Amino acid sequence: MAERTLLLRNVRPDGGETVDVLIRDGRIARIAPGLPADTAEQSIDGENAILLPGLIEAHTHLDKNLLGMGWRPHQAGPSLKDKIETERRLRREWDIDPHRQSMRQALLSLGHGSTAIRSHVDMDTDCGMEGFEGVSQTRTALAGLIDIQIVAFPQSGLLVRPGTFQLMDEALRQGADVVGGLDPCSMDRDPKGHLEAVFSLAERHGKPVDIHLHEPGELGAFSIELILEHTRVHGMQGQVTISHAFCLGMPDRDRALSLIDDLAEARVHIATVATPFRPVPLADDLRAAGVTLCAGSDGIRDCWGPYGNADMLERAMHLGLRNNFRRDEDIEYALWCCTHGGAQVMGLNDYGLTEGCRADLVLVEAETPAHAVVNHPPRKLILKAGRVVAKEGRALLAAP
Amino acid sequence: MAERTLLLRNVRPDGGETVDVLIRDGRIARIAPGLPADTAEQSIDGENAILLPGLIEAHTHLDKNLLGMGWRPHQAGPSLKDKIETERRLRREWDIDPHRQSMRQALLSLGHGSTAIRSHVDMDTDCGMEGFEGVSQTRTALAGLIDIQIVAFPQSGLLVRPGTFQLMDEALRQGADVVGGLDPCSMDRDPKGHLEAVFSLAERHGKPVDIHLHEPGELGAFSIELILEHTRVHGMQGQVTISHAFCLGMPDRDRALSLIDDLAEARVHIATVATPFRPVPLADDLRAAGVTLCAGSDGIRDCWGPYGNADMLERAMHLGLRNNFRRDEDIEYALWCCTHGGAQVMGLNDYGLTEGCRADLVLVEAETPAHAVVNHPPRKLILKAGRVVAKEGRALLAAP
Repeated sequence: MAERTLLLRNVRPDGGETVDVLIRDGRIARIAPGLPADTAEQSIDGENAILLPGLIEAHTHLDKNLLGMGWRPHQAGPSLKDKIETERRLRREWDIDPHRQSMRQALLSLGHGSTAIRSHVDMDTDCGMEGFEGVSQTRTALAGLIDIQIVAFPQSGLLVRPGTFQLMDEALRQGADVVGGLDPCSMDRDPKGHLEAVFSLAERHGKPVDIHLHEPGELGAFSIELILEHTRVHGMQGQVTISHAFCLGMPDRDRALSLIDDLAEARVHIATVATPFRPVPLADDLRAAGVTLCAGSDGIRDCWGPYGNADMLERAMHLGLRNNFRRDEDIEYALWCCTHGGAQVMGLNDYGLTEGCRADLVLVEAETPAHAVVNHPPRKLILKAGRVVAKEGRALLAAP
Repeated sequence: MAERTLLLRNVRPDGGETVDVLIRDGRIARIAPGLPADTAEQSIDGENAILLPGLIEAHTHLDKNLLGMGWRPHQAGPSLKDKIETERRLRREWDIDPHRQSMRQALLSLGHGSTAIRSHVDMDTDCGMEGFEGVSQTRTALAGLIDIQIVAFPQSGLLVRPGTFQLMDEALRQGADVVGGLDPCSMDRDPKGHLEAVFSLAERHGKPVDIHLHEPGELGAFSIELILEHTRVHGMQGQVTISHAFCLGMPDRDRALSLIDDLAEARVHIATVATPFRPVPLADDLRAAGVTLCAGSDGIRDCWGPYGNADMLERAMHLGLRNNFRRDEDIEYALWCCTHGGAQVMGLNDYGLTEGCRADLVLVEAETPAHAVVNHPPRKLILKAGRVVAKEGRALLAAP
């Protein structure tokens, strides 16, 4: 088969000077102004829109949203356990089909310009492998349109629900990409046991780790210390992510900054939602220490809460607002977290806007990248591996 | 002139049952299902959209935005005074014309369904009455489309800039609606003098008061105590609003709750932006005590910061996110703050969705009011006093 070529004319990479981008076989082959139109089989005029690399949804839950299922008033009480238990009940009552729902959310994401998603997927002794199978099916159905990483996630606890470890093990054997974990102290009541289970799975399958950590203050700090120890002992520097890590927003700044230095040294990453109602890790602290920060929508319109739209450019705005970012360079850093930061955490190769990179690209009409973040207009065009997959804010493939 | 009548068919007031709404001479004349089509000269099919009363933008700065002026990277440093001084400089350098800019913002607001705006307008010894005159001109130009209240606002200080009091006095004589104030301690360094000046203007002109209070913790609490004393002494219960009141989010909950009780007793209102990066008054605390809470966009795309889009339905979402509201009744309360709460604070008469009320109406396609808040889709239709003024998210009148 001949090489597929596409010339993307008149685009501004990261808001810079207008250039043309030649894409060959799904990769950026050349970036230069005024490339001859006959260079490629096909040509698209970008009309001076900003060119960004594909947005990265680095923390979400594809298996559990209620998109397209009609408005369902929130039922759960305020505690984490209320939410987990209510969700486990409603998953049955409401027939929340993981394949159908993950298709809907992934295509919504794609319409907003996300070209890769890391999704935690519940596994427990009630639903078994259903979530994993449904999202795996979606991953296959959307191959070539959007990359999906599956985290084997013990949402209802790992040790407290005997059998969960085996389910995670099986999911990892069948192609889950990442080992999940959850609140080693407060959920499993056995932080040592929890982390030994998580890291032993990681070692057995040669997979990275991504642990949800909601534990506040000193409890969360203790769990981070333990995660750091396990990271070092298992030689997993650069392979571990802590999601949320609310405790890093603790009032004791010296304690938090010391933990952040240790995270940097062990190359442990942080994923954030930029939650506005509780302490969160401050982006400036992480940036100064050199800890990679990525971002995600977390749950979208689900039994945990009704907000969210899967737009990672809007998430960059939330990150900017939460961190009081006003200057362009700071807002651009928020955008970096939703692009390059996410790509680093997900271990995506050949990501970016340089020659040789995969042509996962977003065109957005804005004056500057900061303007794109604060305004987050519907994306003009999305390419995945050089192929047009979404236009004017919508994926070309219809959701079920 | 004959009565102007309009039949708004198939709409769901506050998300309830589908009804028809007959509008006569700018007011809601009748609400009932299946009103005969020949009741009115004109008829519009609402296609089962939700009908809300006009959104209320209860705290913004119409005179100082940079809409339509091209992206201008943020320049000011982090302190309040940096922002004030940078803005005073850039107002000249960038030719921020208060009339043109307030037209742009007011029409943007209208497109999102705001039918009334309370705008603080700077007056100081540099710009004199320019801001007031520009926004007054806009108020006249948009009469019948959107109601604009002008707060005579001493942004650069009142006592520290001799001559400001006289400017405010003159603006109030010429039709400013509200007496503004700003950080009685930290800005003017003379809280007693500042508040005496503010309340004496209020008494002289028979106008309500709206004071910006950024002062944190105990300093802000002290200023609130003084504002309460002045409110009582001047018999201005129900006529005073404190904007921001960040100090009410102070860590000492007992202290904050005691102040909130005092605010309720003196019927002092609070206006919030739901700022995510610093403590704010909690909506639940205010609601429980019976303090009226309204909301606003604050500055939009200005020298203070680049965010904001003047969408008060999206602001209700920010308010919900900031307060961790997940249940429908809580999210509906956030919406109440952006509708009825704002109307109470602005003292708007005949506001609401009952017969006899002014037909300031918003049609939005959503399943429930909470859904409208989390999704905030472009508004389908906006009526001001029974007249169509905006459609599909855009005001019919073009901005300059």
